Amino acid sequence: MSDQTRGYETDPWRLRWRGLAVDQLRRTESTFALGNGHIGIRGTLEEGEPRGLPGTYLNGFYEEHELPYAEAGYGYPEAGQTVVNVTDGKIIRLLVEDEPFDMRYGTATAHDRTLDFRTGTLTRNTEWVSPTGRRVLVRTQRLVSFTQRAVVAIRYEVEPLDGDTQLVLQSDLLANEPIVSDTSDPRVAAALQSPLASEFSFAEDYRAVLVHQTRRSGLRMAAGMDHLIESPDGLRTTIAVEDDLARLTVAVDVPHGKRLQLTKFLAYGWSAQRSIPALRAQVDAALAGAVQTGWDGLLAEQKAFLDDFWATADIQVDGDPELQQATRFALFHILQAGARGESRAIPGKGLTGPGYDGHAFWDTESFVLQVLTYTMPEAARDALRWRHSTLDKARERAAQLGLRGAAFPWRSINGAECSAYWPAGTAAFHVSADIADAVIRYLGATDDEEFERSCGTEILAETARLWMSLGHFDSHNRFRIDGVTGPDEYSAVADNNVYTNLMARRNLHEAAASCTRLPDVAAALEVTEQEIERWRDAAARMYVPYDAERGIHPQSEGFTEHLDWDFAHTPLDDYPLLLHYPYFDLYRRQVVKQADLVLALHLCGDSFSPEEKARNFAYYEARTVRDSSLSAATQAVIAAEVGHLQLAYDYLGEAALTDLHDVHNNVQNGLHMASLAGAWLGFVAGFGGMRDHSGEITFAPRIPSTLDRLEFRMCVRDSRFSVEIYADRATYRLLSGKPVELTHHGMPCTVGTNPVTLSIPSITPGPTPEQPAGRAPSRRNPERLRPAKPLPHP
Amino acid sequence: MSDQTRGYETDPWRLRWRGLAVDQLRRTESTFALGNGHIGIRGTLEEGEPRGLPGTYLNGFYEEHELPYAEAGYGYPEAGQTVVNVTDGKIIRLLVEDEPFDMRYGTATAHDRTLDFRTGTLTRNTEWVSPTGRRVLVRTQRLVSFTQRAVVAIRYEVEPLDGDTQLVLQSDLLANEPIVSDTSDPRVAAALQSPLASEFSFAEDYRAVLVHQTRRSGLRMAAGMDHLIESPDGLRTTIAVEDDLARLTVAVDVPHGKRLQLTKFLAYGWSAQRSIPALRAQVDAALAGAVQTGWDGLLAEQKAFLDDFWATADIQVDGDPELQQATRFALFHILQAGARGESRAIPGKGLTGPGYDGHAFWDTESFVLQVLTYTMPEAARDALRWRHSTLDKARERAAQLGLRGAAFPWRSINGAECSAYWPAGTAAFHVSADIADAVIRYLGATDDEEFERSCGTEILAETARLWMSLGHFDSHNRFRIDGVTGPDEYSAVADNNVYTNLMARRNLHEAAASCTRLPDVAAALEVTEQEIERWRDAAARMYVPYDAERGIHPQSEGFTEHLDWDFAHTPLDDYPLLLHYPYFDLYRRQVVKQADLVLALHLCGDSFSPEEKARNFAYYEARTVRDSSLSAATQAVIAAEVGHLQLAYDYLGEAALTDLHDVHNNVQNGLHMASLAGAWLGFVAGFGGMRDHSGEITFAPRIPSTLDRLEFRMCVRDSRFSVEIYADRATYRLLSGKPVELTHHGMPCTVGTNPVTLSIPSITPGPTPEQPAGRAPSRRNPERLRPAKPLPHP
Repeated sequence: MSDQTRGYETDPWRLRWRGLAVDQLRRTESTFALGNGHIGIRGTLEEGEPRGLPGTYLNGFYEEHELPYAEAGYGYPEAGQTVVNVTDGKIIRLLVEDEPFDMRYGTATAHDRTLDFRTGTLTRNTEWVSPTGRRVLVRTQRLVSFTQRAVVAIRYEVEPLDGDTQLVLQSDLLANEPIVSDTSDPRVAAALQSPLASEFSFAEDYRAVLVHQTRRSGLRMAAGMDHLIESPDGLRTTIAVEDDLARLTVAVDVPHGKRLQLTKFLAYGWSAQRSIPALRAQVDAALAGAVQTGWDGLLAEQKAFLDDFWATADIQVDGDPELQQATRFALFHILQAGARGESRAIPGKGLTGPGYDGHAFWDTESFVLQVLTYTMPEAARDALRWRHSTLDKARERAAQLGLRGAAFPWRSINGAECSAYWPAGTAAFHVSADIADAVIRYLGATDDEEFERSCGTEILAETARLWMSLGHFDSHNRFRIDGVTGPDEYSAVADNNVYTNLMARRNLHEAAASCTRLPDVAAALEVTEQEIERWRDAAARMYVPYDAERGIHPQSEGFTEHLDWDFAHTPLDDYPLLLHYPYFDLYRRQVVKQADLVLALHLCGDSFSPEEKARNFAYYEARTVRDSSLSAATQAVIAAEVGHLQLAYDYLGEAALTDLHDVHNNVQNGLHMASLAGAWLGFVAGFGGMRDHSGEITFAPRIPSTLDRLEFRMCVRDSRFSVEIYADRATYRLLSGKPVELTHHGMPCTVGTNPVTLSIPSITPGPTPEQPAGRAPSRRNPERLRPAKPLPHP
Repeated sequence: MSDQTRGYETDPWRLRWRGLAVDQLRRTESTFALGNGHIGIRGTLEEGEPRGLPGTYLNGFYEEHELPYAEAGYGYPEAGQTVVNVTDGKIIRLLVEDEPFDMRYGTATAHDRTLDFRTGTLTRNTEWVSPTGRRVLVRTQRLVSFTQRAVVAIRYEVEPLDGDTQLVLQSDLLANEPIVSDTSDPRVAAALQSPLASEFSFAEDYRAVLVHQTRRSGLRMAAGMDHLIESPDGLRTTIAVEDDLARLTVAVDVPHGKRLQLTKFLAYGWSAQRSIPALRAQVDAALAGAVQTGWDGLLAEQKAFLDDFWATADIQVDGDPELQQATRFALFHILQAGARGESRAIPGKGLTGPGYDGHAFWDTESFVLQVLTYTMPEAARDALRWRHSTLDKARERAAQLGLRGAAFPWRSINGAECSAYWPAGTAAFHVSADIADAVIRYLGATDDEEFERSCGTEILAETARLWMSLGHFDSHNRFRIDGVTGPDEYSAVADNNVYTNLMARRNLHEAAASCTRLPDVAAALEVTEQEIERWRDAAARMYVPYDAERGIHPQSEGFTEHLDWDFAHTPLDDYPLLLHYPYFDLYRRQVVKQADLVLALHLCGDSFSPEEKARNFAYYEARTVRDSSLSAATQAVIAAEVGHLQLAYDYLGEAALTDLHDVHNNVQNGLHMASLAGAWLGFVAGFGGMRDHSGEITFAPRIPSTLDRLEFRMCVRDSRFSVEIYADRATYRLLSGKPVELTHHGMPCTVGTNPVTLSIPSITPGPTPEQPAGRAPSRRNPERLRPAKPLPHP
């Protein structure tokens, strides 16, 4: 689908949708969502209706629900967690004379909404003629503050276009908003009806506060609002409050040429421990701060924060405006998901929707944190601190499973396992290696010894202990890890998953290194030299199965002997396969949902020769159906490495446009953070060839001939630098900080005051790999955008 | 535990419990259950209370209930089925003067109950002194008729022992009896509250009928009662009926020396299709027949039926009276489960309790039908006809799973899959081979061409088709069957399970043979010669993994490389392991719940050399924990074959006494039919060495020195014969029918008019295998019973 059919306009720094499409609201509510990692508000219209799926979320704020089992088993989690749609504060209803402003009625003569990646605001301009012919102009702008994490602000302006008009505004705080949820798809959220019990309500002048508590998880939240009003004379306001509703009503006759302007400040807070008065005070204080900063001040702070972010993180793509926009959209949303989480999880959907119940998965560490580590390392650190804060739960889980160390959950909000499907919830131990890997990457990129001391070593040591109790030395003295589930969800509970074993190897190795570096921390964790020796021994003898006959690595032991899937006879409507075929059939065949061995080629690339990578990639390309949004980016990265640049470009396009093109038809439940991260990965790790094995930063840049130029920015150990890539050369520039040591296509170099320009060696890839019938990525066709250039040879 | 502590008296032909133990009632209700394969009634006291778990069951009569999933998946069954406790007709309450006869009050000066294996009745004698000092003698006898399958009859006699006494009897039909169910254990039944909706009630004179329908499955049932009364003069009777209750009340003053005798006839019927009048008529007719036959007539028919059964099926054990009793108890209950099912399933618990929701499993074909095939072949045939009647459901299930042919369910009442745990419900395909194997065995034992034509060939062909679509030829041209679950429930979803592959091989081979024998039937099933050729080809190239390094067969591919379980550090309270360890940990280790490879050694013994059997047995003995009642019998059979006769004897004792000793502490939910069958298997296949590979009957008898003599009877192709075994010799005797060809320790012989006595060669077994710590079977110690003899050397 082209960007036009979806209604988005192409623009390098903005996402704009012109016109109203009620049936697309659920999708645009996700793409237009605002957030700062602490608060997320979906892009619902201020007047509340028409709407898709309204949602306001506070990171970490969830309700519990029972997980039912027809046949229960030992260790199955009994309680699930689901993100709560908290008190909605963005509602501002408008009455024009006696007509409610509702775009399903009357006529919108103009309407657009714009998410601006540099100002961090969502603006809206609507010119509306009421059913009785009254014309008004409604302009709104909103932001979720990056600098004041508890604060949301909305400016709402109405201007009569025809003559004097009576306007009434109702600005609400609304709790327990009724929502409709389709629960037949396992990927959507569990439905919660009225999860919030009222504890306190207050309203006076222009200010109101509501305090609620969840019924089962016992978490408490407060939402407050305050207002500034600019209006012609004759303004009348009233404020009223009920258990689940606070409302400021503003009524005034506005003469032609004048306008009514309402600035609404919202503050949110939640706690598992703080009292009602404490939480009320917390939001009152945040409101006071916001009002003191003022609307213009909040806007200015927002802009400055984003200027700094783009100075570190921007990617410029010359030759593909759609991808340029999608990439900045992706980076902006990753920033929104991670910026101010402050030791909370980054959920799979960020705070953009209720999909996956608001749970965080390993995607965060393996995809999103790769981006944040090199663009906003303090956000990566905070996300890893959250994992560290859940170590007790992970240790309990390991003990429950009869293991030592820490077993991190497959899916969770508070750190306790919430997966009701044990082959994932219990057996996907790679989650713990992925978290360890994110720690290793963060430490390599920052040398943050304070973090290593307080969190990193402990995570590495406890996950290393997990591997030691999970694996064993077999009769050939190989260290085996049996019966685990790797990243690919179309396989489960297999022996010696190559990805898992390689990641465990690194985990063991780096745990040993960290404990050796910080012997006092190791001692406090009761790590002995003997234990470290055992870790090194297991790492050294880690079993990595190899199929010599085929010259490739089996995803897990025995995989390559399994039956191939009959792709030729699989109707395209049968995708995603998991909705049409039983697990047993998917598990026993060579059909891959998402990169698994290919993810190992990326993250553990130092364990494969270039020839092995090429052969493995071709083998798994033919068997990977990409029923998961976690796949295309990794395929882009390896396609680029082995020289299939057009294929890499296609995959990169798919990953970057997953949400804007709604590839999986589920954007209404929230954005796919890992796919958004995939845009960065495709450019930086794919076309930039960036790898960070063992803490050294290496590049092997190479762009497809369809792009004119690519430039991306990163920061490593407080040094910011940029990499600018043309077809034949790359230039490395230090932007701030100390000189940077890096490698270009295997050649070490130092980038200091002067830019370094190096040529790009040519590569002769083998034949382009084939994908399963009908599952090739869409050919990305920039010629549509630039008709002057001939098509490259495939 | 000795038989004394459980209160059973040792007797070769009876099971008697003397005295009342209220806390043991749930158990004795199961062991004293009566049934005929169509109706089952638990051994609850006539007066209804005290009681354990009352139950009256009609084979095939179930209610549906929703199966809940926290995370659903494709192909998960949505509806479960659970056996219904139907209208209880055995209730006869007694009032002695104004005291209800309730053994928890007053004093039972004498009380015993006796299940008689030759008369097929449960009798009871109670001498009771009421709280106010009135003495009465209550004698009851009941039967579920083998000859009139819809009929139950009860004789109830009361005799005042002290003087003239007013007696009131209330004889009930009670529907929707409230029961208490503990559903925290997955092995018990789903709780149903008031599953029956009243449709019709009638009462007149001494007769009443209640018709009910289940609320969701829509099955209809009728229960009727009629009575004969013998009493002194002055009898007053009334009959009353409500929706869920019909009651005949009998009141009379009984002089000292006289008695009141009530004979109650019950009739049951159910149907998914028949109308209320039709079902009412059906039970009325059955009642008329029963009344016409009369109490004495029913007793005589019952005796004659059992005389015939014992003439074909009896096992005599000299030297172990407890085992003698247990063996006949076992055979009697197997007869009760299978005798008159008439094309219904034989559930895992028979009709003795609600355990496993009343579902039938593969145990029936693999254990129970082995017994019935050689003792009551028409019952085996009827059970297989039930499977044949469910072929459409099995074909639908296969199609749903993307397979061809028929995939029979893991657990079911009506033939539709009810397992909510997919690694069993979907992947345990061996169920279909087990059913095919039972067909093959039945055909070999009977030459029943009519059955082969109407059912057998179709089952064989459709299951053969399943294997062809499930397996594939790998790059080494071996036929592999990947990702399946074998019999052992502590492993799942593994490649090339040896048991499954060997059973599939036989299935394919015999399907080809049957289709070749009956080309017209094959043609009707659209089986072509090419298809038969493919079956033979797959059978010939079936992959059977072998671990040459260890000289044993891995249970599944890779099994022997897995970590061993740490038995030494597993507390004995942790058994059964599935209640204390997660699936993933059980699945990835070498810990075996129940015979799997060892079951292959038995059922596919012709695929292993004697040395392989001995090595395999020793290897798996050390890893098998017998957390399943499906294991001991098979271990007994192979222990005997490889020469460990005392160990075989120990296992046989465990299997035979599973229910009488309540080894698994769950007899209250019903008897373990497969363990009961295990008593027969231990004697016939174990000490008799009977095998029926490829339809030939072979023996290799050998008894432990602790037994004096063993004799068992069988029928093969309408010939009945006996095998009498001493330490040094065995005698084969034809009892009726044509001469029988058999093999004794490899030597073919014909048994005709004259008995054939042959000597038993000696065997020198290797060292006795060891079991996991604490999991060795109890040493069976007949010296306790026969102190004269010295202990044999182990």
